Amino acid sequence: MRNLVAHKSCFLVLLLLLLLFTSQFSSATKKTLNRDQPCKRFVLYFHDILFGGNDVANATSAAVANETGLGNFKFGKLFVFDDPMTKDKNYLSPAVARAQGFYFYDMKSDYNAWFAYTLVFNSTKLKGTLNIMGADIMAAQTRDLSIVGGTGDFFMARGIATFMTDTFQGAKYFRVKMDIKLYECY
Amino acid sequence: MRNLVAHKSCFLVLLLLLLLFTSQFSSATKKTLNRDQPCKRFVLYFHDILFGGNDVANATSAAVANETGLGNFKFGKLFVFDDPMTKDKNYLSPAVARAQGFYFYDMKSDYNAWFAYTLVFNSTKLKGTLNIMGADIMAAQTRDLSIVGGTGDFFMARGIATFMTDTFQGAKYFRVKMDIKLYECY
Amino acid sequence: MRNLVAHKSCFLVLLLLLLLFTSQFSSATKKTLNRDQPCKRFVLYFHDILFGGNDVANATSAAVANETGLGNFKFGKLFVFDDPMTKDKNYLSPAVARAQGFYFYDMKSDYNAWFAYTLVFNSTKLKGTLNIMGADIMAAQTRDLSIVGGTGDFFMARGIATFMTDTFQGAKYFRVKMDIKLYECY
Repeated sequence: MRNLVAHKSCFLVLLLLLLLFTSQFSSATKKTLNRDQPCKRFVLYFHDILFGGNDVANATSAAVANETGLGNFKFGKLFVFDDPMTKDKNYLSPAVARAQGFYFYDMKSDYNAWFAYTLVFNSTKLKGTLNIMGADIMAAQTRDLSIVGGTGDFFMARGIATFMTDTFQGAKYFRVKMDIKLYECY
Repeated sequence: MRNLVAHKSCFLVLLLLLLLFTSQFSSATKKTLNRDQPCKRFVLYFHDILFGGNDVANATSAAVANETGLGNFKFGKLFVFDDPMTKDKNYLSPAVARAQGFYFYDMKSDYNAWFAYTLVFNSTKLKGTLNIMGADIMAAQTRDLSIVGGTGDFFMARGIATFMTDTFQGAKYFRVKMDIKLYECY
Repeated sequence: MRNLVAHKSCFLVLLLLLLLFTSQFSSATKKTLNRDQPCKRFVLYFHDILFGGNDVANATSAAVANETGLGNFKFGKLFVFDDPMTKDKNYLSPAVARAQGFYFYDMKSDYNAWFAYTLVFNSTKLKGTLNIMGADIMAAQTRDLSIVGGTGDFFMARGIATFMTDTFQGAKYFRVKMDIKLYECY
């Protein structure tokens, strides 16, 4: 009797295994990822100090293309930046990373932006990069951009960067809180 | 006899399991994805109405850098856009998403372009973004760009966006059919 | 006795299976990928010949935005390119792919760049694209950018592109060795 049960359960196991194998090599993957449980998470502040012409020492970004006149919200104005990323809101705090990339304004009826950049980590503790792109929908309190790849200590990572505007001082300085959440860690 | 068979099959199962486990944690993954079976698919039309200087109300894109003179096909001319995406070919149809990003021409012997942009969905049914980049090889009847990430209802998605030029009315208006296929859904 | 063992091992198998299943559908994935074992790898040389105004026949890239004056290292200067990729260092060798995209300088204290581009393969052997973005930290001997997507023969690929400056002849010509390593192949 008992060995019959054993045999049956083994058969069941084989079936399940087959099923599992099949699902492994199935067409498109419909997986479940828990948004509340990233495999890595940290918050950094992005500081952007716009170049005015005479402030090379302080400035961290500069306009490379002018606004186009399509609306009144700087549509098309494009900026290149090499901005410090700090753990707190003080832009004079030690930078734990640099954010290198560009953004531009892209809406005729309101301020709205689009970003593509790299977070560059180069400390004794952490070396590597995270590559990020997406819409910065400024009207939303928080907005999500895609972390599309990583290198070094972030080898092959993917995830979400959540932006929250922290302060906006005219055209001169703005600060964005970036909540970095990785869902693929290797 | 029977329990011997049971024992043997169990041993086999264990071996298979071990194999499976190993393949899980193997180095690079060589997986099979069926290109004909995306986990999500929809077609949208992209409408680009170029700003001419006096048509702010209608225009959806604007040139932010001039062509360079390298060849006769606008090499280097760069455009920022905030374009409506509709379900049919009529650009006055309700926009189910916005496409926000940029493109530029990049060939000296023919028209050819490169795109990076975000599809922004913001309806009661669908909220989220898809981030897309790649070459728009205009000489090809269809061309594939990469969907490199997603947020909100498209959390962590990846896939392919297939472009097909639908109409091209001089420099003023063009329409692209975009076949959005996701192969990683979460 | 024996059937008891069989039964027990089957039970163990079921437990392991359950564990495996659970790990499949867990929240964030912490997987192991061996950096030394890409599923595909090849080395190509990138040749960039800057347009000077009278050399349309030879030039492969052109400046579309001027430097900004933030520092002395061309901060913000942006270039669009359609560059040949060859198997050896000779830029006259047959191009096995084109690199189409852009780069810009983005540091005020040294030369440093940021790239986004597509490798376009269009031979009888190989058709498809690889989409790449990231920081080109020129001070480092080698630097890694992210391969964030692929199409055609590189359908859904991801990986790392390692840059190594091979030669830099003033503003006129530079060559970069690109070591393309894919870790996700389909």
